[in-house]
Amino acid sequence: MAPQLDGYFKQVDTLSDHFIERLRKAVAIPSISADEERRPDVVRMGQFLADELTALGAEVQQRPLVVIARYGNDKKKRTILVYGHYDVQPAGKEDGWATEPFELTVDSKGRMYGRGSTDDKGPVLGWLNAIEAHQKAGVEFPVNLLMCFEGMEEYGSEGLDDFINAEAKKFFADADAVCISDNYWLGTEKPCLTYGLRGCSYYSVEISGPGQDLHSGVFGGTAQEPMTDLMRVLASLVDTHGNIQIPGLAELVAPLTDDEKALYGDIAFTMDNLYESLGSTTSIYPDKEKTLMARWRYPSLSVHGVEGAFSQPGAKTVIPAKVIGKFSIRTVPNMEPEDVDKLVYNGKWWVASPKHWNFTAAAKATERVWGVKPDLTREGGSIPVTLTFEQATGKNVLLLPMGSSTDAAHSINEKLDKKNYIEGIKLLGAYLHYVAEEPMTS
Amino acid sequence: MAPQLDGYFKQVDTLSDHFIERLRKAVAIPSISADEERRPDVVRMGQFLADELTALGAEVQQRPLVVIARYGNDKKKRTILVYGHYDVQPAGKEDGWATEPFELTVDSKGRMYGRGSTDDKGPVLGWLNAIEAHQKAGVEFPVNLLMCFEGMEEYGSEGLDDFINAEAKKFFADADAVCISDNYWLGTEKPCLTYGLRGCSYYSVEISGPGQDLHSGVFGGTAQEPMTDLMRVLASLVDTHGNIQIPGLAELVAPLTDDEKALYGDIAFTMDNLYESLGSTTSIYPDKEKTLMARWRYPSLSVHGVEGAFSQPGAKTVIPAKVIGKFSIRTVPNMEPEDVDKLVYNGKWWVASPKHWNFTAAAKATERVWGVKPDLTREGGSIPVTLTFEQATGKNVLLLPMGSSTDAAHSINEKLDKKNYIEGIKLLGAYLHYVAEEPMTS
Repeated sequence: MAPQLDGYFKQVDTLSDHFIERLRKAVAIPSISADEERRPDVVRMGQFLADELTALGAEVQQRPLVVIARYGNDKKKRTILVYGHYDVQPAGKEDGWATEPFELTVDSKGRMYGRGSTDDKGPVLGWLNAIEAHQKAGVEFPVNLLMCFEGMEEYGSEGLDDFINAEAKKFFADADAVCISDNYWLGTEKPCLTYGLRGCSYYSVEISGPGQDLHSGVFGGTAQEPMTDLMRVLASLVDTHGNIQIPGLAELVAPLTDDEKALYGDIAFTMDNLYESLGSTTSIYPDKEKTLMARWRYPSLSVHGVEGAFSQPGAKTVIPAKVIGKFSIRTVPNMEPEDVDKLVYNGKWWVASPKHWNFTAAAKATERVWGVKPDLTREGGSIPVTLTFEQATGKNVLLLPMGSSTDAAHSINEKLDKKNYIEGIKLLGAYLHYVAEEPMTS
Repeated sequence: MAPQLDGYFKQVDTLSDHFIERLRKAVAIPSISADEERRPDVVRMGQFLADELTALGAEVQQRPLVVIARYGNDKKKRTILVYGHYDVQPAGKEDGWATEPFELTVDSKGRMYGRGSTDDKGPVLGWLNAIEAHQKAGVEFPVNLLMCFEGMEEYGSEGLDDFINAEAKKFFADADAVCISDNYWLGTEKPCLTYGLRGCSYYSVEISGPGQDLHSGVFGGTAQEPMTDLMRVLASLVDTHGNIQIPGLAELVAPLTDDEKALYGDIAFTMDNLYESLGSTTSIYPDKEKTLMARWRYPSLSVHGVEGAFSQPGAKTVIPAKVIGKFSIRTVPNMEPEDVDKLVYNGKWWVASPKHWNFTAAAKATERVWGVKPDLTREGGSIPVTLTFEQATGKNVLLLPMGSSTDAAHSINEKLDKKNYIEGIKLLGAYLHYVAEEPMTS
């Protein structure tokens, strides 16, 4: 039987101004983790969360740049562990923002502009708002909620893996499933659940020759030039249609099954969605299915740049003595890191079963709040903490996004739509209800 | 009959400490033209030169960042126009200098370390020292000397071409030949005269695709990546043996004649000289002749770098939206700029006749001072002012270097050997004597 949610939903609507105000306060704290001078603001943001959680009756522990909390301790209820982060990317008006990045600005269409609105303060506050709306509606909270809110996600989540592993059998010990709200809808109209991520293997190719940089006039034509060879190496990695040219790499990729192939046609995604995101029509494939498969289930190789060579505007006639080319391969099942060699940095791909009760509950909650069955999506990018949680807890991990694809996370004019925020809060609460009673599948 | 030079030479030896002191004063002025804050020092350096020249009895005119002067106005004598520059490259101990760059430091082997010592304050002061030694020796100065000393050479000599062209029929009107001391010996043991320079055509290749930078996880595999195509373009320009792959370019190059081919064997240059300069043995050719031809008479293509892509240390997973590859082609006879297309910046090659009386006189002076016949060299690099003087005055231009190949011009620990300085002063004076009486050939 579907959970009774009307009272909760109504309360969320009633409290919407209050919830937006809460987000406004959070956005106003410039918790930029990559900027050492802003590190105190990251701490302040953690304190803000801790205070709000404590006021809501949660048991809170503040660790250096991580806030963990528990709401509810009922042995008869399931326990859901949720993750989000309260630090943000850098932002400044000089980058081209149309509004003050650390001032939540709501336009007539309900777009709430502000750094962190969608990545990831809005979703984090969503959990707090869900607790509050339950309380004010007098609706019993359906699960025990464990929270892990991080303040260093945009700075590589240094130390977080160790922290999660250490708490897996302590603070997080009774988690039955994990839910992460830190990604985005595939488009703008339809919510999705995300059950897979590509991994990332990052490589450097270093080529050196002469003992120091040389003048191209004096030595050009007589000395071997590292840039010449580096260009040759980098050009050999991938063709102009995006096909990786590394022999044997394609054989590592899990074959496409008919079942999987059938999934792509139904996804709410159009080539126009892609063109809008790209800001151009320079796509590799002309059709949706091939594009989605290229993004989700096939590897890609990007050449990111060259270190050690001339990278400024203008003309400089130096032969660099040592150059380092950078490229990365987005990896997919079944590409094991040790097979994808010469590794410098390695994030593994992740795919969960979307048939797990954690997912089916979320799908029902989504249909309840948004009135449509969610797409089951994967992401082209990686969210390393996903895999950490899965491995540390041994539990199913769900990615349940709040924001949409146009939110411009990491870009200027980042925003979260009011509708996504408010309905998203409903969704988070609804998810907890459904997940509390969904029949347990593996 | 050979000029009577013994008295002059003896006087140079007698005055050597005084001349080194003059260089010490010049090196102490950090006349770094590329640094706007040091521009007053460039002016101060010009004033220093003007004062010294005035004290020597020269007629001096100070223009913004150019000092021109005339010494002697005897219609019966030839008039030689000399060029040098009194600005220097930036330098700081933090770059790795073993000594204070703006403090002339003489070691036990007579190496005089200091920014500008060899490029180009030593050679510039050489002319002043030659005047002074003539005066003190009571030897009549053999020519009228016109001087053009520039303070902006290391900043692109902005405006200098216009200045030279404007003065060509005025202050420089009676010049019979030009002599420039702003390059280096091929090796360390044997002086040379330089009669040719390669030109330089600098190119940019801009490739753009998406409207903004993209996340490689989200869009890798679905969007055309400009870096992929740029690597392909840059890799196609030159092979790993330095052979330019641009169709038709080789056909522009003047064919090698048997006469020219015979010139290279006698040049005092060894592969070890090259290996020492490179700081490695990564040469393209194993033998001297091919190496010299590759440096002097064949074009070369160098890839200098990429603008717009990731160039810092570390790992960044961005797909750049627009990238600009930079490469240059060192040009040789008969490659006309308009034939070497898509030009951004263009410096032409230069070759003079080493049989001109300006050269034969310098050769005799060199043999007189150094006891060996000088090599006749060309340079792989370009000194654009050479061509400007040749074209503006219509006269033969000689490059008569003072410093040696190990002087590290533009590098840290720049130096000029005392011997090169002192004997070089002798050479400059001797050159003036020989050039005053050398039979005029075309």
